[in-house]
Amino acid sequence: MQELALGIDIGGTNTAFGIVNRRGAIIAKGSVPTTGHASVQHYIAALKSAVLPLAEKEGLDHFAGAGIGAPNGNFFTGEIVFAPNMPWREIIPMAKLVSDALGMKATLTNDANAAAVGEMMYGAAKGMKDFIVVTLGTGLGSGFVANGDVVYGHDGFAGELGHVIAIRDGRKCGCGRLGCLETYASATGIVRSADEWLAVRNEDSLLRKHTGKITAKAIHDAALQGDALALELFAYTGKILGQTLADAIAITSPEAIIFFGGLANAGDLLFTHVQHHMEENLLNIYKGKVQLLQSALPDADAAILGASALAW
Amino acid sequence: MQELALGIDIGGTNTAFGIVNRRGAIIAKGSVPTTGHASVQHYIAALKSAVLPLAEKEGLDHFAGAGIGAPNGNFFTGEIVFAPNMPWREIIPMAKLVSDALGMKATLTNDANAAAVGEMMYGAAKGMKDFIVVTLGTGLGSGFVANGDVVYGHDGFAGELGHVIAIRDGRKCGCGRLGCLETYASATGIVRSADEWLAVRNEDSLLRKHTGKITAKAIHDAALQGDALALELFAYTGKILGQTLADAIAITSPEAIIFFGGLANAGDLLFTHVQHHMEENLLNIYKGKVQLLQSALPDADAAILGASALAW
Repeated sequence: MQELALGIDIGGTNTAFGIVNRRGAIIAKGSVPTTGHASVQHYIAALKSAVLPLAEKEGLDHFAGAGIGAPNGNFFTGEIVFAPNMPWREIIPMAKLVSDALGMKATLTNDANAAAVGEMMYGAAKGMKDFIVVTLGTGLGSGFVANGDVVYGHDGFAGELGHVIAIRDGRKCGCGRLGCLETYASATGIVRSADEWLAVRNEDSLLRKHTGKITAKAIHDAALQGDALALELFAYTGKILGQTLADAIAITSPEAIIFFGGLANAGDLLFTHVQHHMEENLLNIYKGKVQLLQSALPDADAAILGASALAW
Repeated sequence: MQELALGIDIGGTNTAFGIVNRRGAIIAKGSVPTTGHASVQHYIAALKSAVLPLAEKEGLDHFAGAGIGAPNGNFFTGEIVFAPNMPWREIIPMAKLVSDALGMKATLTNDANAAAVGEMMYGAAKGMKDFIVVTLGTGLGSGFVANGDVVYGHDGFAGELGHVIAIRDGRKCGCGRLGCLETYASATGIVRSADEWLAVRNEDSLLRKHTGKITAKAIHDAALQGDALALELFAYTGKILGQTLADAIAITSPEAIIFFGGLANAGDLLFTHVQHHMEENLLNIYKGKVQLLQSALPDADAAILGASALAW
């Protein structure tokens, strides 16, 4: 009777969790801050006291286990490894800590792989065996599924499309290298493009009237009002993303690429360009065959659903 | 008692075949020309009359089936699809034709995927679940294995690393696009580099004394004699291959990359540079973890062994 799973999405600021049934309905949820704890033990204690009462109410023996999505999470070891935006900069055996605290099996992977499992189980990839999930948030994450299984690689670290070199000797990336895809195609990337262009170009733009630091949302809003520079920023971002996706397609030949995350909400503003430049750069045998889809999971709950799907 | 398999390697010039046991020993072999037949039916008839007597001698009921490796072979459909170097330019249902002719199950895939299955079953990838096979011949072929299975993609066409863009707006490729990896990193690619360099540079080189068209073998021979230009050609080829492999590793995180084919015989002349530039371009989490290996299958028989492994 293990018809429930716990989904835990560990973000840089907040940790969201939910109790999910096999059809992908969230029957209870909550959250705790990820930051502000004296140690990872204090964080686990806070998570436990928020989660356990809800789980006990459903009956702990009804749970198949807990699934955890986290940046730099490793499926094989259950560890979070040097995650750059986490309060803990070392290696944290998070699956074991959660398992011990909650008294149930816990499985961990990175947030994009969790999203891929969620899309396959509940979302836009239902019935697909070969697809890619791309998360366009602060960075660019990806989960590759081949033959119906997440491609973890030999060490659990596969699926770093955000760190494929999109432009050789291009922008400096947080990883220390130059030209990584995520320095262009992410919320942070499009803002960098805007900042660079506004500094060297002269045309008028709504973005010049923006107060405070330019954000991806400000660019989106300006584009919706027909601002030429903002529209061009989406075209440029879409071009680089489309070109790089064409190369990834030559490796795994997916049926679909499913987009997720803040910047993906720009919809056609971005994806008409992604589609155009992807098709233009595809080898003939792949042309017209790869669907670009938006995530079918509700935005606020998708990460919880994705994480929970790991538990089955 | 199905302890035998038939391996058929269809090349542009010759078709080699062999009867292989489960340990990977070839107990009988032969070949027929691929070209010079009036039609594909005549080719199949020639193949049948060469293969069938050998197979019947072992007893047809001892065969698990036939495995076929062919350029542009599709695992899902059993077809050879518009193969550029084949006598038949249309779509050929080769698996069905062979199966009907020989009276046994036949499975087809492209030659690089067949090599990957062969390495996993009998060669350098025994026991590995995540690796890449790269064939460096006239072109550059690749087979990706993840979670112990060949990545065929949704349509059977995955694994075209040779058509990942290595240099944007670079050399014209036979596929019609610009800058594909195989226009640089293949026997043909290194010869193009040599021709380009000899035309615009002035230094002396053994290659200038070469009579007739420069070949990959001539470059190899010159490099073995310490010719600076030839050595630099291997360094350049290795740099482009290493850079592009680093991007592929970010997608599938393999334990090893196994090289195969004529140009791979250059050994350290090429692979010290591949290794150096691959490591230099890897994201930190992958550094020092990916082995570069030479195929462990005997050169002349590797394609037959790879094809036969499909039958099991």
